[in-house]
Amino acid sequence: MSERLRGRRLSTATIARFHTYSRVLERLINDGRRTVSSVQLGRLSATSAALVRSDLFTLGFGGTRGVGYETDKLLERIVDVLGLERVREVVVVGAGRLGLAIASYLTQGVRGLKITALYDIDPAKVGSEVAGIAIRSGDGLGREALADVLAVVATPASSAQHVVDQLVAAGVRSILNFAPTGLAVPPDVTVRSVDLAGELYVLSFLQDHHDGPT
Amino acid sequence: MSERLRGRRLSTATIARFHTYSRVLERLINDGRRTVSSVQLGRLSATSAALVRSDLFTLGFGGTRGVGYETDKLLERIVDVLGLERVREVVVVGAGRLGLAIASYLTQGVRGLKITALYDIDPAKVGSEVAGIAIRSGDGLGREALADVLAVVATPASSAQHVVDQLVAAGVRSILNFAPTGLAVPPDVTVRSVDLAGELYVLSFLQDHHDGPT
Repeated sequence: MSERLRGRRLSTATIARFHTYSRVLERLINDGRRTVSSVQLGRLSATSAALVRSDLFTLGFGGTRGVGYETDKLLERIVDVLGLERVREVVVVGAGRLGLAIASYLTQGVRGLKITALYDIDPAKVGSEVAGIAIRSGDGLGREALADVLAVVATPASSAQHVVDQLVAAGVRSILNFAPTGLAVPPDVTVRSVDLAGELYVLSFLQDHHDGPT
Repeated sequence: MSERLRGRRLSTATIARFHTYSRVLERLINDGRRTVSSVQLGRLSATSAALVRSDLFTLGFGGTRGVGYETDKLLERIVDVLGLERVREVVVVGAGRLGLAIASYLTQGVRGLKITALYDIDPAKVGSEVAGIAIRSGDGLGREALADVLAVVATPASSAQHVVDQLVAAGVRSILNFAPTGLAVPPDVTVRSVDLAGELYVLSFLQDHHDGPT
């Protein structure tokens, strides 16, 4: 893969931007748009035109001044680079409001992602269905075979570490954590955390210090 | 503020880490711990000991080899720098599963943040209460006075831009967006986006390319 990207290693921020471009491009193509300028793509992706040009150059696209980029070719290339043709299975642990919101979003046809299981430890929830996904008991989580799936942790902070230990025992190597707590995992396991309060603190700090942060 | 931070401008990533440290320190203090090492604080904050030492040096803390940092003094300093003594009001737009999950989390006593309103355009939801917060009609959002609040957008992608336009009209300058779409705002308004699918794509890419990304 890397040699097809001009030898550049992709940062996680770049991967996230490529994914945003792919979503914007899908919308543009649905609207019948054949080309897009770096300025337009930047505005719709909440990033700068300069960064768009740099990113697309990485992908081998030079663009044509005054014409812009061909939407369908660009989308095809990004889908290829990110491996979005392949469907990745996702399991969600925690069937509270947040877990159900995530599960419900993932059943709405998000390209390349498919939710295959939803776990909860509450016996009253186990067995009920959400958007066609049956809620399974979290008790046996550590004995499941989940080597290739992505796992989303949407439990309270107090149970998140236990859940993560079970997921790791089941073979999971990639975890997206929504519980407001740090998590310890072996070195071959990747955890990314979405921290609602942390995001709001950053906004609050930026609002107080307009000229301060970078 | 900056001169008290050795002239260093804080990046958003640093602010987010300071907040994580504050949460970890609160937990340690509750557990009766008087000191913490950079290794321990790093492990509990999902970051490296070296970065912890660098961050705390920015705050004026040198640490003592073999003893570590005093938990109470460190927490006090971070609370001061981040302005966490002051309570910031938060409004949430969208009372679907995700909006309710966020509202419910924010009513559980998150330091420095207080949810004051929850808006939805569905007349069937308006007037009902969630964790003591009455759901208000989103129709009049643009006429509210929301200059100092942080706004969370938890609507479908299709209505997010309209909601953001209304929030901006109401004076909001800081928006946390959960809708899976880019948003256009005036230059004096800050939008941070949490992108569930994007986070999962990053994990998926990393799992496929262990040695690839940085």
